[in-house]
Amino acid sequence: MILILAPDTDRESPQYHEMLDHLSRLPGVTARVHQVQGREQTLTEVYLLGNTAALEESEMAALPCVERVVRVSADYRILGRHKDDDRAAHFAYNGVDFSQDNLHVFAGLCAVDTPEHVDQTMRAVAEAGLSCTRMGAYKPRTNPYAFQGHGKRCLPWVFESAGRHGIKVIAMEVTHDGHLEEIHDALEAAGRPTGVMLQIGTRNTQNFELLKHVGRQTDFPVLLKRGFGITLEESLNAAEYLASEGNSRVIFCLRGMKTHLGDPHRNFVDFTHIPVVKRLTRMPVCIDPSHSVGSRAASPDGIMDMMHATAQGVVAGANMILLDVHPAPQKALVDGPQALRLEELPWFLEDVRLAREAYERRRDLAQRFLAEQNRQ
Amino acid sequence: MILILAPDTDRESPQYHEMLDHLSRLPGVTARVHQVQGREQTLTEVYLLGNTAALEESEMAALPCVERVVRVSADYRILGRHKDDDRAAHFAYNGVDFSQDNLHVFAGLCAVDTPEHVDQTMRAVAEAGLSCTRMGAYKPRTNPYAFQGHGKRCLPWVFESAGRHGIKVIAMEVTHDGHLEEIHDALEAAGRPTGVMLQIGTRNTQNFELLKHVGRQTDFPVLLKRGFGITLEESLNAAEYLASEGNSRVIFCLRGMKTHLGDPHRNFVDFTHIPVVKRLTRMPVCIDPSHSVGSRAASPDGIMDMMHATAQGVVAGANMILLDVHPAPQKALVDGPQALRLEELPWFLEDVRLAREAYERRRDLAQRFLAEQNRQ
Amino acid sequence: MILILAPDTDRESPQYHEMLDHLSRLPGVTARVHQVQGREQTLTEVYLLGNTAALEESEMAALPCVERVVRVSADYRILGRHKDDDRAAHFAYNGVDFSQDNLHVFAGLCAVDTPEHVDQTMRAVAEAGLSCTRMGAYKPRTNPYAFQGHGKRCLPWVFESAGRHGIKVIAMEVTHDGHLEEIHDALEAAGRPTGVMLQIGTRNTQNFELLKHVGRQTDFPVLLKRGFGITLEESLNAAEYLASEGNSRVIFCLRGMKTHLGDPHRNFVDFTHIPVVKRLTRMPVCIDPSHSVGSRAASPDGIMDMMHATAQGVVAGANMILLDVHPAPQKALVDGPQALRLEELPWFLEDVRLAREAYERRRDLAQRFLAEQNRQ
Amino acid sequence: MILILAPDTDRESPQYHEMLDHLSRLPGVTARVHQVQGREQTLTEVYLLGNTAALEESEMAALPCVERVVRVSADYRILGRHKDDDRAAHFAYNGVDFSQDNLHVFAGLCAVDTPEHVDQTMRAVAEAGLSCTRMGAYKPRTNPYAFQGHGKRCLPWVFESAGRHGIKVIAMEVTHDGHLEEIHDALEAAGRPTGVMLQIGTRNTQNFELLKHVGRQTDFPVLLKRGFGITLEESLNAAEYLASEGNSRVIFCLRGMKTHLGDPHRNFVDFTHIPVVKRLTRMPVCIDPSHSVGSRAASPDGIMDMMHATAQGVVAGANMILLDVHPAPQKALVDGPQALRLEELPWFLEDVRLAREAYERRRDLAQRFLAEQNRQ
Repeated sequence: MILILAPDTDRESPQYHEMLDHLSRLPGVTARVHQVQGREQTLTEVYLLGNTAALEESEMAALPCVERVVRVSADYRILGRHKDDDRAAHFAYNGVDFSQDNLHVFAGLCAVDTPEHVDQTMRAVAEAGLSCTRMGAYKPRTNPYAFQGHGKRCLPWVFESAGRHGIKVIAMEVTHDGHLEEIHDALEAAGRPTGVMLQIGTRNTQNFELLKHVGRQTDFPVLLKRGFGITLEESLNAAEYLASEGNSRVIFCLRGMKTHLGDPHRNFVDFTHIPVVKRLTRMPVCIDPSHSVGSRAASPDGIMDMMHATAQGVVAGANMILLDVHPAPQKALVDGPQALRLEELPWFLEDVRLAREAYERRRDLAQRFLAEQNRQ
Repeated sequence: MILILAPDTDRESPQYHEMLDHLSRLPGVTARVHQVQGREQTLTEVYLLGNTAALEESEMAALPCVERVVRVSADYRILGRHKDDDRAAHFAYNGVDFSQDNLHVFAGLCAVDTPEHVDQTMRAVAEAGLSCTRMGAYKPRTNPYAFQGHGKRCLPWVFESAGRHGIKVIAMEVTHDGHLEEIHDALEAAGRPTGVMLQIGTRNTQNFELLKHVGRQTDFPVLLKRGFGITLEESLNAAEYLASEGNSRVIFCLRGMKTHLGDPHRNFVDFTHIPVVKRLTRMPVCIDPSHSVGSRAASPDGIMDMMHATAQGVVAGANMILLDVHPAPQKALVDGPQALRLEELPWFLEDVRLAREAYERRRDLAQRFLAEQNRQ
Repeated sequence: MILILAPDTDRESPQYHEMLDHLSRLPGVTARVHQVQGREQTLTEVYLLGNTAALEESEMAALPCVERVVRVSADYRILGRHKDDDRAAHFAYNGVDFSQDNLHVFAGLCAVDTPEHVDQTMRAVAEAGLSCTRMGAYKPRTNPYAFQGHGKRCLPWVFESAGRHGIKVIAMEVTHDGHLEEIHDALEAAGRPTGVMLQIGTRNTQNFELLKHVGRQTDFPVLLKRGFGITLEESLNAAEYLASEGNSRVIFCLRGMKTHLGDPHRNFVDFTHIPVVKRLTRMPVCIDPSHSVGSRAASPDGIMDMMHATAQGVVAGANMILLDVHPAPQKALVDGPQALRLEELPWFLEDVRLAREAYERRRDLAQRFLAEQNRQ
Repeated sequence: MILILAPDTDRESPQYHEMLDHLSRLPGVTARVHQVQGREQTLTEVYLLGNTAALEESEMAALPCVERVVRVSADYRILGRHKDDDRAAHFAYNGVDFSQDNLHVFAGLCAVDTPEHVDQTMRAVAEAGLSCTRMGAYKPRTNPYAFQGHGKRCLPWVFESAGRHGIKVIAMEVTHDGHLEEIHDALEAAGRPTGVMLQIGTRNTQNFELLKHVGRQTDFPVLLKRGFGITLEESLNAAEYLASEGNSRVIFCLRGMKTHLGDPHRNFVDFTHIPVVKRLTRMPVCIDPSHSVGSRAASPDGIMDMMHATAQGVVAGANMILLDVHPAPQKALVDGPQALRLEELPWFLEDVRLAREAYERRRDLAQRFLAEQNRQ
């Protein structure tokens, strides 16, 4: 059960404490307070866990500060959509608004290699009108003897370059608790020139301890990649881990599944799940066409499969795109062959714009058709 | 090796026979003649199988009637795309042109039930401006005790209704050699009021004997569904079975793969393979959103997943759509829950039109970008 | 619902006809008569399909000739095991008894190549004390240009050689209705020197028309291979197709599943399903280690993976083994690399004997333990 | 390249330091020293990473203390088997010897619940003659709101009970770096009454940071479970992470794969990979029949599928078995339905003994056959 408090409820007020006191006396029920930073106001929600079946909605609604009560079904209590549940499906971070209704492109380096490449990439991204990027400092690799990323020592160059080019958010994978502190410290040391979205990779989707650690901080929003060998439900439960610890600023990323049936693509592209994630949860949905497709092969119409996959995601309402670009793909230390060249970025973005426009028209068409149907 | 003859080569001419005589004397080489009915002319191609490595291209090109020689790589000899291979990627049937460049919607009944439902459906399809439909007379069912379709006894009503409403092509699944004769006879008996595209279902993708039988006739074009548990390469090889027996008017249909990773959809939608099939072969590519997705569930934007999947196929260049519609889905004998209602068809078609328009713009954009790149 | 008639019921007797008459008057119920050739007697069973929920068991049990009534659950009506169902789990063919309790090895050629190889193989098989073999005349191949087997022209040599060496049953794949007639005719022409078990391959597991054709004859028992990309339940339903048409002399063969998770083996070996098939149905269970594993690789203990897989099947109660052997594997036209050499056959059989002995001891142990537990 | 030093080389000796000095001067080469505690002696191995292609084997063999040189292929440098590589495939821990040649049963609680259940289980295990058990204190759960184990607070009872009953090794899952310290401290506090084998679960197989942390300590050996959605090669690479950090006392555990093709079992049992792991690496191989099969269902011979799966693993040479038992399965907090009751343990062990005996006979048979073959 979720108690949604009146907007801008003062957490120092006596009414607020009275409500918490009451909740603390309910037998078998635990209350967890979550704060959601919206575009214009701060929302406070109180999640009641445990024996909530015994609670009366009307009684809870009568408590001080409580504006509305949502009884949740078993799955995805916090991030899920429930009956009569109009909680927000968006959040803001460092001036950028993430939502199930809009679209952001995060183009950047899969793996940070040299300061020059970082800076060239940031410049190209900014010139293309984007305010977000991706930069891989910590790289989990299947083979223990492969290059594992420059780690914390590259963070200063990366953050400074981002600040120089006005980049607001960098998606960056973390694979260990300690990486959060390293990122936090490097950001502070650089004077907070940019923001970071913590990325959890597909091999760590069910690394529940890492999820809990990342979920316990609310400085950084989180981009959680779907596990490549588990069901969608299991991956959505993993996202709920983040929220259950307190951080519900989570974006869910589809990145293709591992199976022999998706060949010749590197993974079996799963972007048809975009509407499913939106229906089951309130998370914005990201797609990762670079790792899903994994090559630059093109069809006879001249369009790379990777761009077709992107358009497929966007035309169905994707809210974010992770894209590998590189100033010199042949010199990239990781996944060079799938990267777009910097000079191809404008083409890619124009292609995305066409697909997004089609999505918006489709959405308007549906509204018109459904409204007409309801009138009948 | 393929010898492409001059257009409209007369197969009764002495030059033609001289060429065939020459080929018949080549040691270890077998020649098979294929005729391809194009939009404006008839093309004749001679496929040389066996020890063709020993043949000189220039020598073959010098034979009478031969206009061009294509040396094929190992895979998909007839249907594949090979180096310097500009053979056609289209064919005509009963006045309808099928190609890797255009788009047709085949809306109709998954399983024929009553004459009334057939006629209501045909009327709605025709009124929506379509000239093609799908009608299932022979239904392969997992459980031997389930309804298996009305079989040949429904063919007369189906063909008459099609004729009445001006439907030109009906996609119809066949599961046994004998069904071809039944369809042929029923069409003749009804005075050929319409045409039939023979459909091979996913359970028969590797029923090589059926493929050979269907490949040996050239009256009807063929819609081959991808096998739901085999690699794309294996399914493309199955298509080549049809062509190797003489029928290269083949459309390849993506219909989702069986795996637990696609839940909650009925199958794991594989429409990202559209550009792959177009790159590897010259077959037009069909998508089957109804069976792939298998439900009418919708996302918060009001659009059914099935329509999102369709748009994803179309925005990446799909050439044909198989769609289940039904006048009364709750009464359908097979797969009712996934069928669109007839009154939703116009919405669906308008949604498809928006996605197709986006595809065409994307294609033009790519041409412009690539042309500019080449100029540099 | 199944009516099990008294043993050796005379199908010409007035009582028998009285019973059938009665059944024919039941509304919405269809009766199908099946005869089961047991070791010592012939059993007749009448399957009632349709609206059987309305029937009273006691009323049916009171009909003439009826000895016992079994109400079946939905799945696998004929081949399944149902509550209080002690119908036989065995059948005899050409003097060989197949059962869920015993074990037969069918060693032979995956693909028939030359008369000499056939005869050498038959001799080795007979000398090893076996009375069954496998011989592939019709080979379904993924690529249409690959060798597809010698077909009917090799049947005379194969059957004559079998007769010469006293082989009683040959497992032989069929892929088309016509093959049954060819096999029947060749056997007759040769004077019935041996018997044939018709084998349905994994690509035809859901070729329902072929299953129905094979199910409508009762001359030959059937070996049905599990489909390599479908669930066990779907494959068992395919077996039921055979039985629903009248032939319940069916053996179910596990042969590994297609997925990337079984590498480096050719297929993901599924022999752990042996007890499951025995629990759900009354079919004897065969294993195909040659195609499952697909190589001769060995572990440091010197034992080939293929033999380990065989032992794993046998120790869990497998009833039949299909094994590829070849007099000269390097010359085999199909699947040579996985074949055992003829001189390795005695080792293989001794290895199987050790595993079978372990199974029998395990079975006895279970009986003792469970008996003791029941006494307590 | 691996330099195997003379047994019991003194790491304080001048020769040893001379050798290390020499290695440190090789350009582009890094040396890592590993110590392997064998049954009777301590072996020291020096792994050379980097540009080792340039090194001469003879020159390396001439260095002081070096007894033998093994040039390794790319994969699994430390744990793998390489050409002419006779490094040990066994290790000792707390008086128990683990090897590719023997077999240990670890029966115990999937999840620790009460001190009484722990003690009852330890007693039954000890009475059955076993010296190892499994006890789950930290339980990773798919759903964040499910019971996650008692964690460190149960360690004192568990270790004390183990000591009381003479249990030598407890397999215990860890999911976070911090758990190692908790286990270490609790063992010390209890006076080291038993030993612990750290278990990495299937959701953490590619949690490389955890693997590195666990690999950096050598107090505890490690049981690494195969990842349920990745290839065998990827899981073996994960094992190599442990070794590359210094801990090569690793046992590899097969536990079934996640796919819809293994139904009705909880996972698709993969025990046919036992000989593959033994061929590719020197790790002993464990099987986990409880989680693979996931139920107590039995076949008509009265034997549970779980016991059949176990016998299949053992007959092919498995070296360790993880088994869930519980004094009162219906009260278990996690995975009760699949647990064996304590009074069934003797049956299980006798069943295992029969399968192991069969394996040993099969191994001897192979040695005889291969020896004879070599003589010819």
